[in-house]
Amino acid sequence: MTYDTSYLTQKTFHSAMSKGITSKKEDYSQWYNDIVIKADLADHSDVRGCMVIKPYGYSIWEKMQSVLDQKFKDTGHSNAYFPLFIPKSYFSKEASHVEGFATECAVVTHYRLKNDGAGNIIVDETAKLEEELIVRPTSETIIWNTYKGWIQSYRDLPLLINQWANVVRWEMRTRLFLRTAEFLWQEGHTAHSTSQEAIEETERMLDVYADFAENWMALPVVKGRKTANERFAGALDTYCIEALMQDGKALQAGTSHFLGQNFAKAFDVKFTNKEGKIEHVWATSWGVSTRLIGALIMAHSDDAGLVLPPKLAPIQVVIVPIYKGEDDLKNISNFVDELIPKLKAQGISVKYDDRDTQRPGFKFAEYELKGVPVRVAIGGRDMENGTVEIARRDTKEKQTVEQQGLDVYIGQLLEEIQENIYKKAKDYREEHITEANSYEEFKTLLDTKAGFIAAHWDGTPETEQKIKEETKATIRCIPLDNKLEEGVCIYSGKPSIQRVLFARAY
Amino acid sequence: MTYDTSYLTQKTFHSAMSKGITSKKEDYSQWYNDIVIKADLADHSDVRGCMVIKPYGYSIWEKMQSVLDQKFKDTGHSNAYFPLFIPKSYFSKEASHVEGFATECAVVTHYRLKNDGAGNIIVDETAKLEEELIVRPTSETIIWNTYKGWIQSYRDLPLLINQWANVVRWEMRTRLFLRTAEFLWQEGHTAHSTSQEAIEETERMLDVYADFAENWMALPVVKGRKTANERFAGALDTYCIEALMQDGKALQAGTSHFLGQNFAKAFDVKFTNKEGKIEHVWATSWGVSTRLIGALIMAHSDDAGLVLPPKLAPIQVVIVPIYKGEDDLKNISNFVDELIPKLKAQGISVKYDDRDTQRPGFKFAEYELKGVPVRVAIGGRDMENGTVEIARRDTKEKQTVEQQGLDVYIGQLLEEIQENIYKKAKDYREEHITEANSYEEFKTLLDTKAGFIAAHWDGTPETEQKIKEETKATIRCIPLDNKLEEGVCIYSGKPSIQRVLFARAY
Repeated sequence: MTYDTSYLTQKTFHSAMSKGITSKKEDYSQWYNDIVIKADLADHSDVRGCMVIKPYGYSIWEKMQSVLDQKFKDTGHSNAYFPLFIPKSYFSKEASHVEGFATECAVVTHYRLKNDGAGNIIVDETAKLEEELIVRPTSETIIWNTYKGWIQSYRDLPLLINQWANVVRWEMRTRLFLRTAEFLWQEGHTAHSTSQEAIEETERMLDVYADFAENWMALPVVKGRKTANERFAGALDTYCIEALMQDGKALQAGTSHFLGQNFAKAFDVKFTNKEGKIEHVWATSWGVSTRLIGALIMAHSDDAGLVLPPKLAPIQVVIVPIYKGEDDLKNISNFVDELIPKLKAQGISVKYDDRDTQRPGFKFAEYELKGVPVRVAIGGRDMENGTVEIARRDTKEKQTVEQQGLDVYIGQLLEEIQENIYKKAKDYREEHITEANSYEEFKTLLDTKAGFIAAHWDGTPETEQKIKEETKATIRCIPLDNKLEEGVCIYSGKPSIQRVLFARAY
Repeated sequence: MTYDTSYLTQKTFHSAMSKGITSKKEDYSQWYNDIVIKADLADHSDVRGCMVIKPYGYSIWEKMQSVLDQKFKDTGHSNAYFPLFIPKSYFSKEASHVEGFATECAVVTHYRLKNDGAGNIIVDETAKLEEELIVRPTSETIIWNTYKGWIQSYRDLPLLINQWANVVRWEMRTRLFLRTAEFLWQEGHTAHSTSQEAIEETERMLDVYADFAENWMALPVVKGRKTANERFAGALDTYCIEALMQDGKALQAGTSHFLGQNFAKAFDVKFTNKEGKIEHVWATSWGVSTRLIGALIMAHSDDAGLVLPPKLAPIQVVIVPIYKGEDDLKNISNFVDELIPKLKAQGISVKYDDRDTQRPGFKFAEYELKGVPVRVAIGGRDMENGTVEIARRDTKEKQTVEQQGLDVYIGQLLEEIQENIYKKAKDYREEHITEANSYEEFKTLLDTKAGFIAAHWDGTPETEQKIKEETKATIRCIPLDNKLEEGVCIYSGKPSIQRVLFARAY
């Protein structure tokens, strides 16, 4: 039996056959899952909804953490660590907060196991907690309970703290990185003496997130505010950055909340101001999570695997020797031994893969799958000619390049790739912000082109809810730089002063 | 009413009065607690046994993490992340393991709260888990359950993975940093194709810990092996580093376990070796925790507060201006503005404290309390003379030093302080390893001099247990470099081939 594969390019054939990645067009959701699994980023665990983040996936998170952590420190924040467990009574103190999280909490009720005598390990019923403990889904309550002891005077403010931690939300439908029962994140929790200062902090951290998304993740985002329906449970105002994935669905990539005095009131956190008057403290919280890895994968990857922006790629350059004998290899290795320190001096992470257990073709496929931005292949002929072959992952273009000045060339190429990946995502996003002026047009767009749909809305939660029920589209945000424009709501026909961005979302 | 304070030095008076630190002599345990609280390192939380690690304490942990993480990577390990929760059945698979941890487990039984209709938030009994989840006290079981899917062939080995995580052990008697219900740690979990390779890994990581303790924490440690009684639950052999605190009690600072094939057998993790034969995989695990911060505090601090080795001090140098007017301050600040970049170029972290809200004396006391290794004070007279006053935290010596070449001087001084702190701790430790040749002598030593007591032991768990019950002293370890020496057990009089190290311990 033979296959007619002439309609496939060699690369497509190779990808489809050896990597087993479902094509994006065929099944976007399966394509995503295939990349996460095959590129060794993460795996499902046997614990319901919890993932295992594998070393390659975790190394992307480490890069994200180190950049974000520096940005938090540069804006005056310190890290600290608060308990994993929250007593149920604390958790319940802020009414809308507990309502928002109550239905998805892991609850600790006992503190001991025992052997039942027949060799079975069972829960020891005599070791029941007087008060149940909630595994933190977010830490506002335990942190504000702590801040009560830390804040007395305006001199103690602002208090600018961040925590890197794991949190648990008992999600019913999970998806690797994007929605898992346990995930890793950072949560900033700040305390201020005035409303204005807290709002400025909320906006500052939104800018930090937007800067990170655009300039590191190469992910264009819309900065905006959530409607009341989509606000964080306990916030007066939720700011967000919204990104667009390649299937036209939106993804919330980070949020920054102005919490007003809600938590200060719930936990009785007051301070004496400069005038000697006692007031409640103003609060913000803000966070991004391992969900960002999901966004990174979805936004840039293709049917051959992961595509990573150089600034977050654990390996930026891989060098593969193509040799016939020992002499050939020694010759190539001598050249590489001189090249690597020059690349490292520029802060470029580079891997020389001279394993003799795998063929070059296998290696090419592996690094393509794993999204290494630049591949350098060097053969005996190249050494004679003083050249190398360079393949870039984003465009898949190959080029023969002079060995002389190669380090400088690669440095520039990485910058070009970073820009190109961003530009591609940005072009896609721009093409997928469409105005709809009627509900019919809105629904058609959702089912055909998708993306963000800019439409007039009457400003009521009821209309928003109806549209969500009928179309599964939600208001992703009211962009911060929105221009005012008179119009009528696509659903109710009532007057509206601006368009808002709708989309189906992850 | 007047107090006669003439018998107090000025410094002692100052420390005792303004900082409220109990003296070490008076109450060692309270002294430790006072330093942790007053130096802003950590605090008790309202959650039983859980601590809040405050920003200053956390910044020490960040320094420890960054050094250790680099050492793990330099020895070929990658980071990954595994679930917080362990299904009860997995947890129970390795018999001695579950026995060791069953009595101190936080157990999750439900996944939802609800409003009872009367405004109370209660556990939703309809949302009971089919199988209880244990909050990890350590991750061998969940990790080996995962490794089963990752390891098929000798080509997949060795698997060298580390995890930075929080763990929970429901300790009944807790103490900040040293013993808390939740703590932060790293746990390495490696898989190997031979017993020998796994033992080499166990020893390699013990060496990494010992190197970190001695050369970064300035903490001399004894490398040794635990007796069967003190082994990790599930290990064939537990290696440890043991340090001595200033009250003569020992503290286990890190452990590295050779797990044999116990977990591979419990989770059926097999591989095909080079000869095509199927075998069980060999395992190690190793960890250090936030307990190290407790060790750091206890080993070096004094009645005036924290003493930190420069290599782990978040602030290594503080500069305090002593000025009369604006001109004075401007003059000093100009000098400091030139000094700081020179210090930073050497990788020295420096803080210029020119707050005008606090007096120099207050600042001196604060940085002394917080263990900043070098304090530079500069006054108007100093500027005229081209000098500064330098105070080192470890010896409390003050010295007038030329401004010229100050950056180089400070760099060398920090190295000298690091060495001196280590030497002091080492001298103390050497003085506190004493040989005892009878049980009477042993007991007297324990109650008078304390420290490590090197004594002959007959090698039986029974004798070890009896000594523990009667004296609260345990065998801390059998030193790796122990010399063989014939003798008789101090307890049973039976023959012994070597002395082992006993001590009362944290």
